[in-house]
Amino acid sequence: MSLIDNGPAAATAADPYDPVAFRQGLVEHGFILPTGVRGADGRSAKFEDLLQRFDKLVLREAVDDGAEEMHFPPIVARTLIERMGYLHNFPQLIGSTHSFFGKDMAALELAALADKGERWEHLLEPTETMLLPAACYPVYPLFSGLLPEGGRLITVCNWCYRHEPSDEPTRLQAFRQREYIRIGAPDAVEAWRDTWLQRGLALLRRLGLPADSDVASDPFFGRSGRMMAASQRDQRLKFEIVVPVISAEKPTAICSFNWHQDHFTAAFGIRRHDGEMAHTACLGFGLERVTLALIKTHGFDLAAWPAEVRTQLWG
Amino acid sequence: MSLIDNGPAAATAADPYDPVAFRQGLVEHGFILPTGVRGADGRSAKFEDLLQRFDKLVLREAVDDGAEEMHFPPIVARTLIERMGYLHNFPQLIGSTHSFFGKDMAALELAALADKGERWEHLLEPTETMLLPAACYPVYPLFSGLLPEGGRLITVCNWCYRHEPSDEPTRLQAFRQREYIRIGAPDAVEAWRDTWLQRGLALLRRLGLPADSDVASDPFFGRSGRMMAASQRDQRLKFEIVVPVISAEKPTAICSFNWHQDHFTAAFGIRRHDGEMAHTACLGFGLERVTLALIKTHGFDLAAWPAEVRTQLWG
Repeated sequence: MSLIDNGPAAATAADPYDPVAFRQGLVEHGFILPTGVRGADGRSAKFEDLLQRFDKLVLREAVDDGAEEMHFPPIVARTLIERMGYLHNFPQLIGSTHSFFGKDMAALELAALADKGERWEHLLEPTETMLLPAACYPVYPLFSGLLPEGGRLITVCNWCYRHEPSDEPTRLQAFRQREYIRIGAPDAVEAWRDTWLQRGLALLRRLGLPADSDVASDPFFGRSGRMMAASQRDQRLKFEIVVPVISAEKPTAICSFNWHQDHFTAAFGIRRHDGEMAHTACLGFGLERVTLALIKTHGFDLAAWPAEVRTQLWG
Repeated sequence: MSLIDNGPAAATAADPYDPVAFRQGLVEHGFILPTGVRGADGRSAKFEDLLQRFDKLVLREAVDDGAEEMHFPPIVARTLIERMGYLHNFPQLIGSTHSFFGKDMAALELAALADKGERWEHLLEPTETMLLPAACYPVYPLFSGLLPEGGRLITVCNWCYRHEPSDEPTRLQAFRQREYIRIGAPDAVEAWRDTWLQRGLALLRRLGLPADSDVASDPFFGRSGRMMAASQRDQRLKFEIVVPVISAEKPTAICSFNWHQDHFTAAFGIRRHDGEMAHTACLGFGLERVTLALIKTHGFDLAAWPAEVRTQLWG
């Protein structure tokens, strides 16, 4: 298609950031395998390889920090989501896992309803799990009690779920975050966050991405949520690194830095070695979004990417 | 603990396959990070490294087959699960994703209920997705229509969900399957399945696992399910490779081979290049289960594993 073969980005004369054309290009160039679920498409080998290569770059960047690596499944305890305050702040994004606990007669009813194309989900009950909304969540409860001197540094790369179906190719319901989580003294945690903000920006710019950072806020739900977002901005608790992917005016967040202060340490009783209050901060690269930003910036033909970018990813 | 330091397996005099002792050993030796959710614990770097090394061995074994690699998220279209017949066969295992679609007042009610420790899930509605129960499911709908001559061979490694919470360490709610999926002429598909059964057995035995294969059946639900399981056995449609992990008498399935005949090709209208009916078969290694079988067989101290096993995994 001329739209796509015309240049590195899926550009039209009208809007070089047209999300529909970008998505179409991702499909036609074999990066995305459409499943019919908005925000939950398949990834081709080519897409996944790129994503994994970027993840390795991040790990290499941080190797001297000696983070402890952990891995968690896409489901977590329902009680964890409740304790994190997530139901208050982001009820619109939750994924609650429900299953069937009935016997033969109810199972027949369920199957018969499904066969008729009628709804059958009222026959389900909630299970003990929910979908993981942020890669770092399972980490905090592991550290209830006293920390070692110097605190902890953890890294995870987990599948996250957020219920925000969209045709916009960077807005995913299921995606991976490479996160680092720092738990320790408030000043150490804040300094770590500041260091990583510069480090993340430098890493992404070396890959040729027109990345900028800015203070940001979470998509808190509803009317009271707008006040929470404003307060979060005022206190400069959240920063994002953004790159234009589907809009020049509203660039896409591909990395975020969150200073939770004592929000999670209070919830899970995490204290410093001397019993003093601990803080936490985390930073997360949205791995699919970084991959999409790279493709948007450098084009669908990987062989034609700038040599200095190729060397870092494939060198 | 003497129980655990006593030998390669978490053995007691009474029962060398005691699942409680094995799980305790996995935790104490830093393989498993307990989350409080049965069947959804965290994996340490050490566990994950072992799992990934085994997965690479499988990929290497199959490299000359030229399978196309695809990657899918842990959620899939609800309509896919409906069309696969999964609600009829395995309603007890499903994971249905529900979320909150309400406005401010309902959100306040939800949060208030959660704060009081009361149930709030009746305020949710089903979303368009469910959790993926088997790694191969998202593959079939991609091939509606005519296949190329010779058919297709695909490989995936996806997170799967099954609602069967258990303290038994090999019974997971969330786990990964490395699957190969063959779509083509009935005789080619059956021959491919037979070849892989021998290949899988040889691969696992080379790793020192006391692996055996046997005809098997799926855990079909309810009374009518027992007839389906018997028919599946009679037709020799399912084989499993099993290894003793938590019981000598009931060894654990770590790899399964499924010949679906025209079940999925009929559901998704997949035909051969000449318009004739196509068959499908798949095989899947349960990556966590293989990892657990290796640890059970060779012990908690990886450095003390037999040299010929270490060479294959770390060589």
